[in-house]
Amino acid sequence: MGPTARLAEFVVQTDGDAIPAHVIREAKRTLINILAVSLAASDDSSVGALEAWGGREGRSSVFGRGSASEAQAALVNGYLAHLQDYDDTHFPTVLHPSAPTWPAVLAAAERTNASGRDALVAFAIGCEVACRVALSVHPWHYDAGWHITGTVGGFGAAAGAARLLGLDVARTTQALGLAGTHAAGVRDAFGTNGKALHAGHAAASGLRAAALVAAGFSGPETILEGRRGFWAVLSPNGNNPAPIEALGDLIASGARWELQNNGLKPYANGVVSHPLQDAVIELRNRHAIVPGEVVAIEARVHPLVPELMGRAQPETGLQAKFSHQHCAAAALVDGAGHEAQFHDDRARDPQIAAIRALVHATTDATLGEDEVHVTIRLKDGRALSTHVEHATGSPENPMSDAYLEEKYRALVTPVLGGPAAEALLRAAWGLDNAPSVRELMSYASRPHPEHRRG
Amino acid sequence: MGPTARLAEFVVQTDGDAIPAHVIREAKRTLINILAVSLAASDDSSVGALEAWGGREGRSSVFGRGSASEAQAALVNGYLAHLQDYDDTHFPTVLHPSAPTWPAVLAAAERTNASGRDALVAFAIGCEVACRVALSVHPWHYDAGWHITGTVGGFGAAAGAARLLGLDVARTTQALGLAGTHAAGVRDAFGTNGKALHAGHAAASGLRAAALVAAGFSGPETILEGRRGFWAVLSPNGNNPAPIEALGDLIASGARWELQNNGLKPYANGVVSHPLQDAVIELRNRHAIVPGEVVAIEARVHPLVPELMGRAQPETGLQAKFSHQHCAAAALVDGAGHEAQFHDDRARDPQIAAIRALVHATTDATLGEDEVHVTIRLKDGRALSTHVEHATGSPENPMSDAYLEEKYRALVTPVLGGPAAEALLRAAWGLDNAPSVRELMSYASRPHPEHRRG
Repeated sequence: MGPTARLAEFVVQTDGDAIPAHVIREAKRTLINILAVSLAASDDSSVGALEAWGGREGRSSVFGRGSASEAQAALVNGYLAHLQDYDDTHFPTVLHPSAPTWPAVLAAAERTNASGRDALVAFAIGCEVACRVALSVHPWHYDAGWHITGTVGGFGAAAGAARLLGLDVARTTQALGLAGTHAAGVRDAFGTNGKALHAGHAAASGLRAAALVAAGFSGPETILEGRRGFWAVLSPNGNNPAPIEALGDLIASGARWELQNNGLKPYANGVVSHPLQDAVIELRNRHAIVPGEVVAIEARVHPLVPELMGRAQPETGLQAKFSHQHCAAAALVDGAGHEAQFHDDRARDPQIAAIRALVHATTDATLGEDEVHVTIRLKDGRALSTHVEHATGSPENPMSDAYLEEKYRALVTPVLGGPAAEALLRAAWGLDNAPSVRELMSYASRPHPEHRRG
Repeated sequence: MGPTARLAEFVVQTDGDAIPAHVIREAKRTLINILAVSLAASDDSSVGALEAWGGREGRSSVFGRGSASEAQAALVNGYLAHLQDYDDTHFPTVLHPSAPTWPAVLAAAERTNASGRDALVAFAIGCEVACRVALSVHPWHYDAGWHITGTVGGFGAAAGAARLLGLDVARTTQALGLAGTHAAGVRDAFGTNGKALHAGHAAASGLRAAALVAAGFSGPETILEGRRGFWAVLSPNGNNPAPIEALGDLIASGARWELQNNGLKPYANGVVSHPLQDAVIELRNRHAIVPGEVVAIEARVHPLVPELMGRAQPETGLQAKFSHQHCAAAALVDGAGHEAQFHDDRARDPQIAAIRALVHATTDATLGEDEVHVTIRLKDGRALSTHVEHATGSPENPMSDAYLEEKYRALVTPVLGGPAAEALLRAAWGLDNAPSVRELMSYASRPHPEHRRG
């Protein structure tokens, strides 16, 4: 049995009831995170262009935008989930597994009227498939210039959808094949709307692959291992089937799920500055620091911090995402690092600009990438210090449920309003006991207020 | 100015009125050919799966199937155009430029109510862009395992659509970028419905790229030459910007158009057997040969013929496409090599099977790939010989208009009936004087009779 068929066997034969509770819980947490970041992004002006293209007719729910066809819903939801670069990250591979997988699973669950539990199981399985394929081509594939979320994401979407559509092993193999042969996305598109569109394409293409095969379409049967398949063509400098071969153990024992290596981002910027933001917020909250009292923020950081994020005085929101000084200043002033802290007006805010000038980083190559030492000096002479060993959202320090809910509320309450935001949150936490995803999606698809007015 | 921007400049600045008449005529011939092969394919059972996926709601015409959304129309039309592998071929690169490009151009022409002439100009430009990009990565890209029609086709679709949507150079550059970053299709999918879906994906993705950018979406600006762009990622073992740099001359002089190197296929099978089929049909028709009188068909062929198409007694229609013996036998019995000659029942036909056993090929490496010597021996002792120097449809021996019309009628009359088939043919030949593509598309989208009954 080849690796592609083995993946298909895993998709079809995994006993959903045997999936450990902590895996289902992590699936719910990624859903809550995806709902948060997607709804926060749902009033972006670019979404109108997508709607002008794909229409709004259909019965599949679109985050914050009503409904559309299955193809369009998966495309837009995948796009929204990745637009702020604030979705979950599989640490070993930098794959963002949820942005392509959840939209396909949710659309398939709506089509089949699947139970909430079955949707969570399908996501866990799709996510596992995507992460395993990602591991099989890491690091060669990303290094070659592929945006792994766009390329590998389609495997996760197809796997999750195939599970819900009830495909057998042979058809699931072909669905993975059709998804894999339409894998796309190069890193030249980073910094444009194209990057998030990769995730939308992966979601829609993976869902389409499963739906077409369910309706009798044929697809290739050896997409990974074929002589002109995914490995040979999209990762010619190296690949490693071992993570997929190890799926046999997973089916037998349920021992290791890659969702455990998948982190939720506390801040809407590059991960290397996250420990610094953690530390500043911790000190700010513990000591009730008033920004005007600060005379210096001294940080001992991993060398990647100034290398990747060293823009001292950014002029736009996008530039601010590449400024650890801005990240630290916004963390001090706002106590957060959401997309709102990276709007152009925050980048130009005089108070934040003044604090940015007080940030002094020295590098220490002995630190971990998710580690930092920070001292904040105040006018009254106090020096307040802390050490973050593992930043929030890293595998060693997963985001707490309380923090996740705080992130969710910060992003969703302005969009849905308090009561609907809370109802959606309850529906997500209770999804494993819900008869369907209908209640969840009815809240999640409520038009954004900006959009309602329009 | 980088290569991507140069392509965009060509798309925007080419004077449509200055395009030579023979180029416009060749554009019409590819259209007639695409209409023929798409309508012939339009009752394939797999199309139902595509419609179950993408629906039939919308105002964009679908070959033989009514109408659908722009996204769906481009997807299905691109799929149909390539499904029988009977569309035109750019000889230098084995790109099939029309299957991705015409559907995008036709949908954009319907959206903008463009004149027939403007649609033909947009196709010629889109086709040129696709062929130039193909030349820039040939042969490395195809050899690496990419299905060049799927990957490069999106550039042609985006270019043609961008021209009709009136994008400026900067936006056209980004439309090419969005199309290029979604390039997809590996050769592992050959032999499945996935291969034709590559062409549908390219058509829809290219059209989407132009439509999204027209509506304000951003895309990468250096998709070809970027450090993580199309050339570096999808053709890392070699690329050659010269064919694109030479576009400057093209704008100035209109001297060389790749449509001149684009051939129409007379037979729905691999090109290496085409000279053999040409020869058999020529002798059959000239001498009114009755199959029962034949005792031997002796052919001196290029060595690739038995290497690629050496299956002596195929059992299915698909296998018959890889049998030069079947191709010759069907040519003798039916005088043709359309998809009908490769149905399963023809592969199993006793008369054709008996003729196949009479085909004897010897190889001669001094022959051209499009050359053959054939002798047919009859029971009465006669030996009838001919020499085909260049097979029909090769650049040196383009398919005649009469032959094209014969192919068209053989494929379209059974689908549309005689009167509508003739009306559509007239609309295509007269497209450069038509106020819009509306009349053409109203005939081209008439539901296939199989479908009307269903």
